[in-house]
Amino acid sequence: MLSLIKRLLIGRPLKSAELGEQKLIKAKALAILSSDALSSVAYGPEQILLVLITVGAVAFWYSIPIAVGVLVLLLALILSYRQIIFAYPHGGGAYVVSKENLGLYPGLISGGSLLVDYILTVAVSVSAGTDAITSAFPSLHEHTVMIAVIFVLLITVLNLRGITESASILAYPVYLFVLALFILIGVGLYNVAAGNVPADLHAPLGTPVAGISLFLLLKAFASGSSALTGVEAISNAIPNFKHPAPNNAAKTLLAMGGLLALLFSGIVFLAYDYGITPRVEVTVVSQIAEHTFGRNFMYYFIQGTTALILILAANTGYSAFPLLAVNLAKDKFIPRMFTIRGDRLGYSNGIIILGILSIILIIAFEGQTEHLIPLYAVGVFIPFTLSQTGMIVKWIRQKPKGWIPKLIINSIGALISLIVTLMFFLTKFAQIWSVLVFLPLIIFVFHRIKKHYESVGDQLSITTCEPIIPIEGNVIILPVAGITHVVESSIHYAQSLAAKQIIAVYVPFEREDAVLFEEKWSNWKPDVRLVTLHSPYRSVIQPLLKFVDTVQRKASESNYQVTVIIPQFIPKKGWHNILHNQTSLMIRTRLLYRKNVIVTTVPYHLKK
Amino acid sequence: MLSLIKRLLIGRPLKSAELGEQKLIKAKALAILSSDALSSVAYGPEQILLVLITVGAVAFWYSIPIAVGVLVLLLALILSYRQIIFAYPHGGGAYVVSKENLGLYPGLISGGSLLVDYILTVAVSVSAGTDAITSAFPSLHEHTVMIAVIFVLLITVLNLRGITESASILAYPVYLFVLALFILIGVGLYNVAAGNVPADLHAPLGTPVAGISLFLLLKAFASGSSALTGVEAISNAIPNFKHPAPNNAAKTLLAMGGLLALLFSGIVFLAYDYGITPRVEVTVVSQIAEHTFGRNFMYYFIQGTTALILILAANTGYSAFPLLAVNLAKDKFIPRMFTIRGDRLGYSNGIIILGILSIILIIAFEGQTEHLIPLYAVGVFIPFTLSQTGMIVKWIRQKPKGWIPKLIINSIGALISLIVTLMFFLTKFAQIWSVLVFLPLIIFVFHRIKKHYESVGDQLSITTCEPIIPIEGNVIILPVAGITHVVESSIHYAQSLAAKQIIAVYVPFEREDAVLFEEKWSNWKPDVRLVTLHSPYRSVIQPLLKFVDTVQRKASESNYQVTVIIPQFIPKKGWHNILHNQTSLMIRTRLLYRKNVIVTTVPYHLKK
Repeated sequence: MLSLIKRLLIGRPLKSAELGEQKLIKAKALAILSSDALSSVAYGPEQILLVLITVGAVAFWYSIPIAVGVLVLLLALILSYRQIIFAYPHGGGAYVVSKENLGLYPGLISGGSLLVDYILTVAVSVSAGTDAITSAFPSLHEHTVMIAVIFVLLITVLNLRGITESASILAYPVYLFVLALFILIGVGLYNVAAGNVPADLHAPLGTPVAGISLFLLLKAFASGSSALTGVEAISNAIPNFKHPAPNNAAKTLLAMGGLLALLFSGIVFLAYDYGITPRVEVTVVSQIAEHTFGRNFMYYFIQGTTALILILAANTGYSAFPLLAVNLAKDKFIPRMFTIRGDRLGYSNGIIILGILSIILIIAFEGQTEHLIPLYAVGVFIPFTLSQTGMIVKWIRQKPKGWIPKLIINSIGALISLIVTLMFFLTKFAQIWSVLVFLPLIIFVFHRIKKHYESVGDQLSITTCEPIIPIEGNVIILPVAGITHVVESSIHYAQSLAAKQIIAVYVPFEREDAVLFEEKWSNWKPDVRLVTLHSPYRSVIQPLLKFVDTVQRKASESNYQVTVIIPQFIPKKGWHNILHNQTSLMIRTRLLYRKNVIVTTVPYHLKK
Repeated sequence: MLSLIKRLLIGRPLKSAELGEQKLIKAKALAILSSDALSSVAYGPEQILLVLITVGAVAFWYSIPIAVGVLVLLLALILSYRQIIFAYPHGGGAYVVSKENLGLYPGLISGGSLLVDYILTVAVSVSAGTDAITSAFPSLHEHTVMIAVIFVLLITVLNLRGITESASILAYPVYLFVLALFILIGVGLYNVAAGNVPADLHAPLGTPVAGISLFLLLKAFASGSSALTGVEAISNAIPNFKHPAPNNAAKTLLAMGGLLALLFSGIVFLAYDYGITPRVEVTVVSQIAEHTFGRNFMYYFIQGTTALILILAANTGYSAFPLLAVNLAKDKFIPRMFTIRGDRLGYSNGIIILGILSIILIIAFEGQTEHLIPLYAVGVFIPFTLSQTGMIVKWIRQKPKGWIPKLIINSIGALISLIVTLMFFLTKFAQIWSVLVFLPLIIFVFHRIKKHYESVGDQLSITTCEPIIPIEGNVIILPVAGITHVVESSIHYAQSLAAKQIIAVYVPFEREDAVLFEEKWSNWKPDVRLVTLHSPYRSVIQPLLKFVDTVQRKASESNYQVTVIIPQFIPKKGWHNILHNQTSLMIRTRLLYRKNVIVTTVPYHLKK
């Protein structure tokens, strides 16, 4: 039943040998790995204007030089990550780069912040997309959380079906969004060039602005830089590309950078030229679209694809998180289960955990995840800074052919990323202080997990010379609850094991019961020793544990091994389980966790 | 840790021999078993007036003859249940009486409806009490559900501490309530007698009323009869009384009947004499109290004790439900666990289940359980009718000395109960139709459970001559995941068991891995046979289950028993469990439920 539902949802299992077919061509990879970055175009320019408006609309012309700054940063990041892709072709991105060049802690900081960041990506982008939908259909507003959760579940299932399948479906909306924005920007620029837009809508470049400060401009720059989140995703996900993976990944990265640059600068320019002021109820992109087309089909097409890409931005998290998790799990910093491929060859545990955690976030914040955006941006710029600093160290150490230009590119990238990170801390400390709490916490957890795995490895390793104590013989304890077929077959089994001693144990609650049972037993199985343990407190387990203790102490003196044989009913139907006392389950758990005894379960399959 | 909390909450465990000290004296039994019935005084008279007001305030004088009818019914019920107590001194009430005299189905209908009814009692009365509190302190209103749930938890814990302890605490509020109402009625009657109450407040008895009908009067009578719910509780709880239990129970029943009659008729009379009209915001009792005392201390004392007794009415459910459940469980209609006495000698499973189910009801209805009241009333009157019909049959069949007056009492009781039941169906069908769905459902479940227990009994019974197949030898299968200490000690254990054959099984995901491991194994343990099972779909369990199947088919031909030995890590700390793949747990569960093999768990206690 369950397995049928699983088949319906995620499809038939794939053989390990089919892994090659689960690799992405560039066009699909671009779609699923850049949806996060491209979707930022929908809110990045607006973030700049929101800072500038605190001085006045006359300051809007500064958005143009700020956008140039963002483009420079984008260029530096793209070139820098291109170098990372070739230097670390097995993926792992910022985590691996920082760990190998800067040391363990910078690596864990990068890995930890990205891990959390992808969860935030999913929660924030799905919530934002859901908001766009409920703004269009206000009657859905009270169901925001449920709708967002359904979207997360849908994306999770799509990703569990495998990356090629999700890419085939999710590529359309991404390209439609790009197409829609290109049409918008094209028509907008034509209007400007044709002189259809009055020139007095905006203050000309260079207009002096009272009250503007470097701090404010840097704050606007940092806010605009939040449009660059998601740029790192491709470097984490190299193993998902078709052969030759690094080359394909690098080309895809360049294509993404180009698209992002065009769309971002187009929107910033049009917003400036149209003299658009950010408003609470209508987004900047929506205002530009209305300005350009009026409320016709194109307007709704742009709005619809924007909502879709906001939701799909989550998918970038689904591509990058599981692969980052594999890298951390291989280094034993997170549970091993993240390294296991699921039925469809994706790292399904990572996908499922990501889905669950982002649903928890959405429910905890009741779908209002906007104030998580700064947290999410700083969580990206910390690894940006660290990974590029790592590359600087690498070039200086290794000095390969032509390393000077590479060093310059990474140095510019590292410097600007650092400035952006610092600006976030200076200007939005109230929203991002928690990063200073959870990063150390995560790193502490990473360490505890690694320590545990290492100590287990040491204990299991056959090279340590712990002497194996020979087993001289077996003592079998057989708790019995009555004279039944179950007990009979358990005794038969015990007798077949060449045990030195077999002890049946009965735990009556009443003294009379004990006498009665001993009599019945001696008539039935006079050859099997019976011990009755009176239990004044009506607990079967306590006297039994005590008895096992006593037997074990004596047995271990002569190197005897104690085995407890517990019969277990297996009813025909699942619901029957609640009709039987779960004593056997409890005895087994308590014995295994408390004592050094072996527990044997003899199933008794009920036929009706 | 958990056990410390348990000790703090419910106290030290009691020995079985201390059961005698857990019996109730009459005064305490009266308090905890009559709180449900007595609390009905707070709303019963109001129910009558609410029906009469549909014709007009002039019809209020009918409340006097209707109250007389209710008193007649009360008398019949009290005398009738007194006879039931002596006839069935081991408790079980309506269930046992109906089952023994009318047959299985009437018994199950009685038992099933009372079982559900006690859950409703708890939910409805705690909600009503909470409502009384939140009316007094409106700021608490938004926390209604939480407050109600906390009260249920409190009462549950009190009952888990044992019946004498809960009775000692809960007796005070009950007697305070009785005292408060006696003062109210006494002062009220004095005022009436002293002529302090104007005579024109009410229409005199016998005033002709336009539009009154027999149907309406019967409806008012049925509504008033809801004050009699809880009268049956003592008959279910006879085993809780001190020796001689039936005599003490009978005396307690008479005392309860007397109190209930006095309080009920007092309130009805004062309401009529004061000319009180039921209002939405103020209860009838509250209006009488205000009329009598004004808003002074006595008024608040009456209001406070009323709120308390409404909550404590739940306690009647806690006394009767577990004992009824024991009777049903002894007859195998509900799970056996209801017959087990807990640490404090109460039937703790019944108490806990009752608490959980009523919390679920409260949460599901968001604390608005008023519309469950009719359902709850009909759930009492069905067993009232059946049990008294059962007594009629008993008297006619057995004809003991002086049976005629007994027959008459039970006949009157049965007839009036039947009329009330029918009136509920006629006048409140919309609220109680669900009883026609859930009663058949419950009886169906009862039957399925009984059928299961009986078939298990048959299968286990040693008297059936299923031949025991002798075990000629053992084949041991040992799944291994590597070359470690755990595997080594498992092999040692297997070798100590005198098995005919030991097969180690390794499930690699990659072909290269298989070759490598086989080589390593043959260097390490050349004397133990190794089988490698390639798993193209990366599942350990599927190939293993298939292999076990094959081995078992061959083994059973020569009567060999197959045992699978599974090592299990026992980490030092609980949280470590999530760091290890739960493969061993999954293998064990799948093997036990699917196959006829024995599963032996070898614990490996990690030291760090």
